[in-house]
Amino acid sequence: MTKTKIGIVGYGNLGRGVEGAIAQNDDLELVAVFTRRSPEKLQTASNAVVHHVDDVENFIGKIDVMIICGGSATDLPEQVPYFAQWFNTIDSYDTHAKIPAFYETVDQVAQQANTTSIVSVGWDPGLFSLNRVLGEAVLPQGDTYTFWGDGLSQGHSDAIRRISGVKKAVQYTLPVPAAVNRVRNGESPELSTREKHTRVCYIVTDDHASQSVITEAIITMPNYFADYDTTVNYITEEEFEENHTGMPHGGFVIRSGQSVEGHKQIMEFSLKLESNPYFTSSVLVAYARAAHRLAQKGQFGALSVFDVPFSAISPKTPQQLRAELL
Amino acid sequence: MTKTKIGIVGYGNLGRGVEGAIAQNDDLELVAVFTRRSPEKLQTASNAVVHHVDDVENFIGKIDVMIICGGSATDLPEQVPYFAQWFNTIDSYDTHAKIPAFYETVDQVAQQANTTSIVSVGWDPGLFSLNRVLGEAVLPQGDTYTFWGDGLSQGHSDAIRRISGVKKAVQYTLPVPAAVNRVRNGESPELSTREKHTRVCYIVTDDHASQSVITEAIITMPNYFADYDTTVNYITEEEFEENHTGMPHGGFVIRSGQSVEGHKQIMEFSLKLESNPYFTSSVLVAYARAAHRLAQKGQFGALSVFDVPFSAISPKTPQQLRAELL
Repeated sequence: MTKTKIGIVGYGNLGRGVEGAIAQNDDLELVAVFTRRSPEKLQTASNAVVHHVDDVENFIGKIDVMIICGGSATDLPEQVPYFAQWFNTIDSYDTHAKIPAFYETVDQVAQQANTTSIVSVGWDPGLFSLNRVLGEAVLPQGDTYTFWGDGLSQGHSDAIRRISGVKKAVQYTLPVPAAVNRVRNGESPELSTREKHTRVCYIVTDDHASQSVITEAIITMPNYFADYDTTVNYITEEEFEENHTGMPHGGFVIRSGQSVEGHKQIMEFSLKLESNPYFTSSVLVAYARAAHRLAQKGQFGALSVFDVPFSAISPKTPQQLRAELL
Repeated sequence: MTKTKIGIVGYGNLGRGVEGAIAQNDDLELVAVFTRRSPEKLQTASNAVVHHVDDVENFIGKIDVMIICGGSATDLPEQVPYFAQWFNTIDSYDTHAKIPAFYETVDQVAQQANTTSIVSVGWDPGLFSLNRVLGEAVLPQGDTYTFWGDGLSQGHSDAIRRISGVKKAVQYTLPVPAAVNRVRNGESPELSTREKHTRVCYIVTDDHASQSVITEAIITMPNYFADYDTTVNYITEEEFEENHTGMPHGGFVIRSGQSVEGHKQIMEFSLKLESNPYFTSSVLVAYARAAHRLAQKGQFGALSVFDVPFSAISPKTPQQLRAELL
C-alpha cells in the first residue's frame, strides 16, 4: 500500500495533535513539519523532520496533503491560499462569518493550481455543521439547536486574562440543562442567548488585586459576558494547575422536527471531548485522506465538509464499508 | 424552479410517509403512486394519481426518481433492479448480511442503464451507518456501539403473533441503561447481547389461551428471544389499542475513542422517533433529491449513503450551506 504523505504547517496544540493522529492511521505518513521558527529549535514528539516554511517548494510532489495548523485570525487567511498554490490543503478556519469569503479566495487559487483544499474542517465548523445540514434535509419542518459545552472557551479565557490584576484564568461554557431537556423533549422552545448557556470562570489574581473590580469587569464585558449569566470563582494557583489546565469541550446539535401527521422526530449529534484541539486534529487527518483521494479524481478547488462523502474519509474500501458498516 | 419529480412504488406505511414527506419539500413533487393492487381501489392521502406498476414504462422521462417502498424480504430484491432499468431509484433494503449482493445486482443494472440507485437508505442501515463510518475514520483507536430502542420491533412482534393463542402482540427493544452509561463514560466495555438490550412484550390472548405456555414459547424462542432477558406482559385489548399501536423507535451509535496521549473522546448520534416508518420515509425523500442530482452529474450505478455528500441531500445551494450552516 502506498501511504498518503502528509505535511504539517505549524506546531502548536493542533499540529502536535495532527502528528499523533497520523500515527494512529496505517495508511498515512508524516513527511515533515514546517515552521516559521528556527527548525533546529523545534523538537517534535515523534522526531519528525522539521523544515522552515520557506523551504516548502522543495516538497512539491513529495507531499500529498498539507494540514495547515495555524490560527483563524491571521495565519490561515494568509497561509491556506499560499500553500494551495502547490499542495492539497486542509484547514480548520473557524471565523463563521468570514467563511464564504475565505472559501472564495482559496477556491480561486486551488482551481487555478489544480489542487484540492477542504476548508473549515473540525467539529464546529465541521461535524456539527454536517449535522445541521442533515437535520434540515431530513426533517424540513423543525428547528435546529446547537449547544456547546461543557467546555473551555479559549477566546473568553483570553478576554479575562487581559483584565488588569488577573494572573491566570479559564472560562467554561455550560449548556443550561433545563433548556437542553426542553429541546430533547421536542418542545421547540425559543431560547435567548442567556437561556441556552451559562459561563463559569476560574481565576487566579495577582497579589492585592480587587476581586470585586475584576468580577464587575467580566460580567459587564460586551459580546463576551454581558448577555450571559456568569459565575466568577477565585482560586489558588495550586488548584488552577491541578484542575484547570486541560482543554475539554463538546456539545450537541439537536434537530427537533415533525414528520407527517405531527409525529415528533428528534435527531441529536453530541461530542464529549477530553481534548478539544486533539479531537479537531483527528478530524483534520481524516479529511486529509479525502483531499488526496478527491484530488486524484480531479475534483479540484475549494470544498467544504458538505461536499465530501464519508467513503472518502475512511481508510476502508467501498466494498468493506458496505459489508462491515452499512 | 423546476421541481424534482418523484414516483412512489408501494403504498404501505413507508409509501404514505414518503407522500407526506414530499409535501414538506418545496423543490419536490409527487407525480404518481404505483401499486400492484387495483389502482382504482387505492385512495391516497393527498389524492395523488395511482397507476398499476405494469404501466410504469409510460412514465419514462416523466419521473426523475422512483422511491421503492416495498419490503426487504421479497419486494425490493425484485423491484429495485426492475425499476433501475428506467429510473433512478431509492430503497430501504435492510437485510444487513445481504446488502453487498443486493448492491452488486442493482449496480449492474444501473451502470448499464445510466441510472443512479442509492440503496439501503433509512436510519439503520442509513444514518446510523454513516455515523459508524465517521466514528471509525475520526477516531481509529476506539470502539463503536450501536444500541436500538426504545422501539417497536416489527419482526419480533410478528414472531410472537405466530404463537398459538396470541391475538395481538407488540415487542419493544430497550437498551440497558447501565450498559449505555458505561459506554458514554468511555469505559469501552465488552458487552454480550444480553447486556446490551432487553425485550418487553405486551400481549392480548385469545380466550382460554394459557399465558404460561405462551410465555415459555416466547422466552425460549431461538434467535429472537433466547439470548435476551425478556419480560412478557398480558394486557386487555382496550389497553393495547390505547397504548400500543404507535411505531416509536430510535437508538444511538456511540464511538468511544482515544486521541493521542490517551484523551478520551466520545461521539454519539441518537434518534428518538415517534414514528419509525415516517422517519425512514423522510430520509428516503432527502436522498431522492441526491439521486436526481448525482444522475444529472453522470454518477451512474448503485451508490450507498457513504458515497453521497450532504450537499446533495439538501435543497439549499452550496453557497447557502456555507453561509448559513457551516
